Amino acid sequence: MRRAVGVGLVSVVGLLPSGSVAQAPPRAERAAELVRLALDEGRAFAILSDLTRVAPKRLSGSPGAAAAVAWAQETMRELGLERVREQEVTVPRWVRGDVETLELVGVDDAAPLPILALGGSVGTSSAGVEAELIVVRGFEQLRELGDRARGKMVLFNRPMPRALLSTFRAYGQAVPQRTNGAVEAAKVGAVAALVRSMTTRIDDVPHTGAVRYADAVPPVPAAAVSTAAADALAARLKSGETVRLRLRLACETLPETPSANVLGEIRGTERPEEIVLVGAHLDSWDVGQGAHDDGAGCAHVLEAMRLIKAAGGAPKRTIRAVLFMNEENGLRGARAYAIACRDELGQHVAAIETDAGGFEPKGFNTSADETRREVLRAALEPLREYGMGALIPGGGGADISVLKPHGVPLFGLAVTSHRYFDVHHSARDTIDQVHERELALGAAAVAYLAWSLADE
Amino acid sequence: MRRAVGVGLVSVVGLLPSGSVAQAPPRAERAAELVRLALDEGRAFAILSDLTRVAPKRLSGSPGAAAAVAWAQETMRELGLERVREQEVTVPRWVRGDVETLELVGVDDAAPLPILALGGSVGTSSAGVEAELIVVRGFEQLRELGDRARGKMVLFNRPMPRALLSTFRAYGQAVPQRTNGAVEAAKVGAVAALVRSMTTRIDDVPHTGAVRYADAVPPVPAAAVSTAAADALAARLKSGETVRLRLRLACETLPETPSANVLGEIRGTERPEEIVLVGAHLDSWDVGQGAHDDGAGCAHVLEAMRLIKAAGGAPKRTIRAVLFMNEENGLRGARAYAIACRDELGQHVAAIETDAGGFEPKGFNTSADETRREVLRAALEPLREYGMGALIPGGGGADISVLKPHGVPLFGLAVTSHRYFDVHHSARDTIDQVHERELALGAAAVAYLAWSLADE
Repeated sequence: MRRAVGVGLVSVVGLLPSGSVAQAPPRAERAAELVRLALDEGRAFAILSDLTRVAPKRLSGSPGAAAAVAWAQETMRELGLERVREQEVTVPRWVRGDVETLELVGVDDAAPLPILALGGSVGTSSAGVEAELIVVRGFEQLRELGDRARGKMVLFNRPMPRALLSTFRAYGQAVPQRTNGAVEAAKVGAVAALVRSMTTRIDDVPHTGAVRYADAVPPVPAAAVSTAAADALAARLKSGETVRLRLRLACETLPETPSANVLGEIRGTERPEEIVLVGAHLDSWDVGQGAHDDGAGCAHVLEAMRLIKAAGGAPKRTIRAVLFMNEENGLRGARAYAIACRDELGQHVAAIETDAGGFEPKGFNTSADETRREVLRAALEPLREYGMGALIPGGGGADISVLKPHGVPLFGLAVTSHRYFDVHHSARDTIDQVHERELALGAAAVAYLAWSLADE
Repeated sequence: MRRAVGVGLVSVVGLLPSGSVAQAPPRAERAAELVRLALDEGRAFAILSDLTRVAPKRLSGSPGAAAAVAWAQETMRELGLERVREQEVTVPRWVRGDVETLELVGVDDAAPLPILALGGSVGTSSAGVEAELIVVRGFEQLRELGDRARGKMVLFNRPMPRALLSTFRAYGQAVPQRTNGAVEAAKVGAVAALVRSMTTRIDDVPHTGAVRYADAVPPVPAAAVSTAAADALAARLKSGETVRLRLRLACETLPETPSANVLGEIRGTERPEEIVLVGAHLDSWDVGQGAHDDGAGCAHVLEAMRLIKAAGGAPKRTIRAVLFMNEENGLRGARAYAIACRDELGQHVAAIETDAGGFEPKGFNTSADETRREVLRAALEPLREYGMGALIPGGGGADISVLKPHGVPLFGLAVTSHRYFDVHHSARDTIDQVHERELALGAAAVAYLAWSLADE
């Protein structure tokens, strides 16, 4: 239903802003060549397979994260990047432990419910926390319960709205339950927080993610419950049953530990001091393999650098690949970058992040203003041929957000989102869920934008 | 990265051609409502699950195909369609039999190679056909071999070109090897035809499909070999080895047998005699479950009819759902439709087919000319919000192609194609490869276009 790659070789020299990329190939040819290289001889999937084999579990501070840091440097060197280096980051270290169960109390033969402790949660005593269950759809409803919530276990059960086309938007509407549920529960005297897993699917796969505590509020244990289990618990309450649950979590927070971002570059030929940053995060949750989140982003970044070189690229500005540590539970890598590279921040002309999974690319979200977007739309025109030339106002990415105060225009790779929350932060986020061609196209899109911005 | 459904409720009444759909809701609202119903309360996936459970194997003439015919009528009645009926079709009946092996002769401990007999292939004797292997990339190369091909087994090994964005185009470039390979092989005196499986993946999954014979050429047995096995065989030859193979196939063609298309309608309120046809094919190959090919299309059609009714639709023209029999190996259902409905063919105002899998929809291919396409682009504008408003010149579909000589504009649902040939005609084409949200959106797109054409 879409035209073949070869058809992309129509000249669009007329679209080039005056004075730009005189010796470089016309934009449409560049896009066609990057797409051809990515689909026909691409290495994105091999790179991701390598990462998920070497370091399937990469939670900050873990041995897997250390292995990923070593792997990233080695891979950047193999790809021929310049100035490959570590940048030290001190990270929190949370460990899941070997016990996490949620059981119905007083129900014979009830199987344990599928849960995952939320990242950062405090543990329980080995006996666990036992309490009566209440179910709410949001914080307001919880506050209205007032004293009736005291001593209870709260299940936050608002689903991600399925009718929204973008599952990221649906996630945005539901995820405050996960992030802030424990604090809100503790404020009304509840003893633990359960949260419906962040997915549009109804199944038995729990999805973890970060929980926050507040200084003035006692931390209560918090866990994600599968959507099917959340529905089943809510149905029991609705039928008039009193439900008592016992939650046992062995998770704990250990002392902070040294880790690292990993950086590598293609040095600019004319203005090497000016930087286009291309980033993703190397850490992942400790379940599954972080294949989409954000192994795919790491593969996009590394493959984009390789593609630019393979296409004979000699960009005018420096393109810097940054694989950040600790996006998932602290953003310490992003902050460390902003501090370590503080003298260069004014020289960053743009930053691109890919952290939405390895699915079919659509284009880019951007923080750039309308005037800038108009120029960029012309630059992205050749990507439209491949369905990935959209420029969507708003956004960027978590790690590169530290550059926003410095006026750096931010870009986030936008991909189709229907399948992302099937796997996100769960045991299902494995390499078999990533499609080679979809991943390859994302790398081509990132390569094209980075190169364009570096030559602009 | 895309806007939420609710944002779609902007009025675009100005886009309506004068005189059309006076009482109907504005187009953008209609599109938003169909998408909302499909994503939030959709039944496409449940319908498909039902079909693949009741009739996982639906090759023409098989008991599974008969079960599918019964299921389709029952489902149409449950959905409240009118004039639900069978339309008799006489179909070929080919059966795979219980033996299909390809073995390396004289190689100790060699595992049998992964193959599937091509649909329609003649069988071999129980001893099989033994011959020396030759490998070619195409028919010209085979003809150049001349007498050196006599008595040999030919492997047609041209891959689907991975660099093409559309895998359908890549398929188009490689599939003549499968369809015509047996005839071309026999013409040069070869004793059997092997064909590299039609997929961009390198794996051990063979993909079947139809093979044709010609009256004047003796039929030789034909089978698809997995891409990994094809590569391994080619590598042996390249290394200078002489490779002898033994092919055994128990497949055979039985007498033709009665089967049926299944039809149901939403009768038009103003011009019931004028028809918008919405079609897919009920038959499938005898491996896997035909979940994408074309169970997904059947689910699209049935769910589209349900969605139109659920959205309160009372289209001016009749919308006729047709689930065709025998698309895969004969197109007898399409021909039977053209004959049985010959008095109505002049009253068909449009025909839509969905037979490209249940993946994320992009829009429609169409045979309509440029003048007509301009009007249609305005009609499809509200689907662009959901990434499925493209109108691509050329195409339609195999079953509805019988309407082309009658001047009926044809439309084919276009979906993203990266994953389709991973599963097409193989044991991997199962329900777990279909994504509920992607399938649902396809049904919404079909519902929208059918309703628009019926009201136009």
